[in-house]
Amino acid sequence: MQQITTEILAQIKSIVGAEYVFTDEESFEKYGRDETEKLHYSPAVVVKPRKTEEIATLMQLANKHLIPVTPRGAGTGLTGGALPHLGGLVIAMERFNSILDIDERNLQVTTEPGVITEVLQNAVKEKGLFYPPDPASKGSCFIGGNISENSGGPKAVKYGVVKDYVLNLEVVLPTGEIIWTGSNVLKNATGYNLTQLIVGSEGTLGIVTKIVLRLIPHPKFELLMLAPFNSLEKASEAVSAIFRAGITPSAMELMEIDAITLATKLLDSSAVQLTDGLAAHLIIEVDGNNVDVLMNEMEAISEVLNNFEVGEIYFAEDAEQKNELWKIRRKANEASVMAGYTIEEDTVVPRAELPKLIKGVKALGEAKGFKVVCYGHAGDGNLHIRINHPTIKKSFESEEMKLILNELFKLIHTLGGTISGEHGIGLIQKSFMPVMFDAISMDLMRGIKKTFDPNGILNAGKIFDQNN
Amino acid sequence: MQQITTEILAQIKSIVGAEYVFTDEESFEKYGRDETEKLHYSPAVVVKPRKTEEIATLMQLANKHLIPVTPRGAGTGLTGGALPHLGGLVIAMERFNSILDIDERNLQVTTEPGVITEVLQNAVKEKGLFYPPDPASKGSCFIGGNISENSGGPKAVKYGVVKDYVLNLEVVLPTGEIIWTGSNVLKNATGYNLTQLIVGSEGTLGIVTKIVLRLIPHPKFELLMLAPFNSLEKASEAVSAIFRAGITPSAMELMEIDAITLATKLLDSSAVQLTDGLAAHLIIEVDGNNVDVLMNEMEAISEVLNNFEVGEIYFAEDAEQKNELWKIRRKANEASVMAGYTIEEDTVVPRAELPKLIKGVKALGEAKGFKVVCYGHAGDGNLHIRINHPTIKKSFESEEMKLILNELFKLIHTLGGTISGEHGIGLIQKSFMPVMFDAISMDLMRGIKKTFDPNGILNAGKIFDQNN
Repeated sequence: MQQITTEILAQIKSIVGAEYVFTDEESFEKYGRDETEKLHYSPAVVVKPRKTEEIATLMQLANKHLIPVTPRGAGTGLTGGALPHLGGLVIAMERFNSILDIDERNLQVTTEPGVITEVLQNAVKEKGLFYPPDPASKGSCFIGGNISENSGGPKAVKYGVVKDYVLNLEVVLPTGEIIWTGSNVLKNATGYNLTQLIVGSEGTLGIVTKIVLRLIPHPKFELLMLAPFNSLEKASEAVSAIFRAGITPSAMELMEIDAITLATKLLDSSAVQLTDGLAAHLIIEVDGNNVDVLMNEMEAISEVLNNFEVGEIYFAEDAEQKNELWKIRRKANEASVMAGYTIEEDTVVPRAELPKLIKGVKALGEAKGFKVVCYGHAGDGNLHIRINHPTIKKSFESEEMKLILNELFKLIHTLGGTISGEHGIGLIQKSFMPVMFDAISMDLMRGIKKTFDPNGILNAGKIFDQNN
Repeated sequence: MQQITTEILAQIKSIVGAEYVFTDEESFEKYGRDETEKLHYSPAVVVKPRKTEEIATLMQLANKHLIPVTPRGAGTGLTGGALPHLGGLVIAMERFNSILDIDERNLQVTTEPGVITEVLQNAVKEKGLFYPPDPASKGSCFIGGNISENSGGPKAVKYGVVKDYVLNLEVVLPTGEIIWTGSNVLKNATGYNLTQLIVGSEGTLGIVTKIVLRLIPHPKFELLMLAPFNSLEKASEAVSAIFRAGITPSAMELMEIDAITLATKLLDSSAVQLTDGLAAHLIIEVDGNNVDVLMNEMEAISEVLNNFEVGEIYFAEDAEQKNELWKIRRKANEASVMAGYTIEEDTVVPRAELPKLIKGVKALGEAKGFKVVCYGHAGDGNLHIRINHPTIKKSFESEEMKLILNELFKLIHTLGGTISGEHGIGLIQKSFMPVMFDAISMDLMRGIKKTFDPNGILNAGKIFDQNN
């Protein structure tokens, strides 16, 4: 990899305009971080282009001079995907912030990647349309970052994840060419699915500059319940029982007592009763266009829960109460960090294996002397596991934590699961990829990377090391 | 490419057993065809393995001796994906016909690829579960072929296509290694999406030997209506209006008068009234768990249709009447072929552009002197266009038809659509890929192919020529 010379810097400035090229310490500090375990790597230059063609020219320049390039959305990632760990150029996408077209005739939206997910959701909701994937960070993350990590969020259990909504992408390749990956259609059997290859590729195969998403009609009503359990295992067993009863809730979240306590304390909220012996809550939502049907579904869910020693179920009465519950769920992450749970894992298993996963991780914590708190999208089998280790505060580059996580991930693999449901692999999880994929599959991924990025300049060293 | 010597043939026999290796004329006739325009290419050997490991050893042998290999499902394909146009080895998957595990706890099924789609659907339905994608050929096609072509069918409009149900695949690579592409989970952000890369790759990247599909609870009720129109354009305009009204039918099919007439004649059916001036029918289905809600939806749909000069709507009263209507729809293809409509296109556009597509193709037919009949999955914008040309009966290798189709596909491209929604590209559509993809994207696909299949032995020359 090469350094950025004064001459190259001048070329960068001529491409995007000098006012959008940053080499100050404050920029290096800000654009050297995301939300991953307080890691920091300074880039050499931060650049904020506005047009696809500018990015294409930047990539041509970088490709010619072998300069490492790290694309960056809002920097809310949790696995270091946006960290410029090799220095070089950070391409910050924040000026790509326009929603280009809400196509109400075809139920589609075309957007730039730097639009905040919640802004996009609200814009289409005004037209009666629904874009369901909403990560906990929806108020600050970019839709482009969501594409890169194949994000999910609570609604995924009924509506699927980002990959289920992406129809077509404009992408600048590492070599500077611009392509569209597909077409603006609901069904496509035309060649290899380049669209799905880009989704979840964590900015290693190209920089997404335009996004076409399919939308659905926005459901008119949502009902929300909070179900308390004195046994974490019973709560997790109840999850798959609800689906087996033929009901598909629009959200099915699990929060362990520590997560609830920490989050309610952080928010100074009294929305949730912390009764004696309480071990976990399920937050369950149903949505649709007919309130009577939803009421029946809530009743049917309650009946299922009664088989699992549920406590007194609380039904949110109005928008305010619903918001309060969701706020508590969304703050679980931040509250756990503040309480010393610094390491977060994004495990996912087939839904009915959740009790085994929870049991396994608790046992591991006891054996290895660390505290564990669990919360997440139980309906999908997607459990966020927060670890509070007495001495190891970062997972990355700790050999001891690596051994612990290896053990956890091996359990997950035997349960049919995988190490990331929605956060991606990025920088800090790549050493665990061999738990999931054999050398042959890893070589296929490296071969794909090389096809897109022959010089290995774009977000190199993310997901896997380029040479092995 | 090499020929199969006596010595290699002996090795093939030792791998799968001599009784499963065929070199007779009858086998060459049968396994040299699929359902594509009566094309025929004789293979050198047909082999019917039973185990993944046998296929792995066969691929190692073929890879070593550079023998072309064509994987084959049920041979119901419409673009020649299973045709052994380079001779060599046909690997017929018909003995991979076991459903391995219906996992009712996790709503998943693990199956071999040689199971007939309808057999799989019925097996999971017995457990109250639903696998929605059902191509018109569901009674004879294999689930493995559906994976290869990313099939759709009438339910796709509400439930999505094959790609939306595939969680994990066991695949034998062209080099003979065996991999699993992912995990048995609903959310996955762990490395490049190899699963989605294999889906729709038409047997060019590997041979699928095990399939894990997600399932959903089976809806309890379906209601079906038949809506007649005296204007094809009005019928197609009504399609997108229904979705804009916030209703998502579980099927929304269009049949033009010629298709209806031919199919009812073939079936000797009187289920459909062929009134004077009739131009097209919409077949509209809604499904769910509450009949009252469905009745309301049918009423809401009727109200929308009234704005588009609909005739007298017919509501199917019982299972028999529903079956009768679906039979007519499913026979459209066969009936058109029998009536001389030999060339079929599988066009797809954004739903609201359907009227423009229909208008365009009719005008093209008039200008170039051929008859056109249209039917298909209007709710997805996926229109099957059958062409009856006075002299050209095959599309493949006809320069005149190539010019005509090029014009059609350019129109589709300008409408935001693509040339195949669910049939794939195979052999006969590959010359049109450049209408959809520029040279850069084609090179990416070739690079991916080369990563998986360095010697270019597996289903070579399908989707695109390997060297350009």
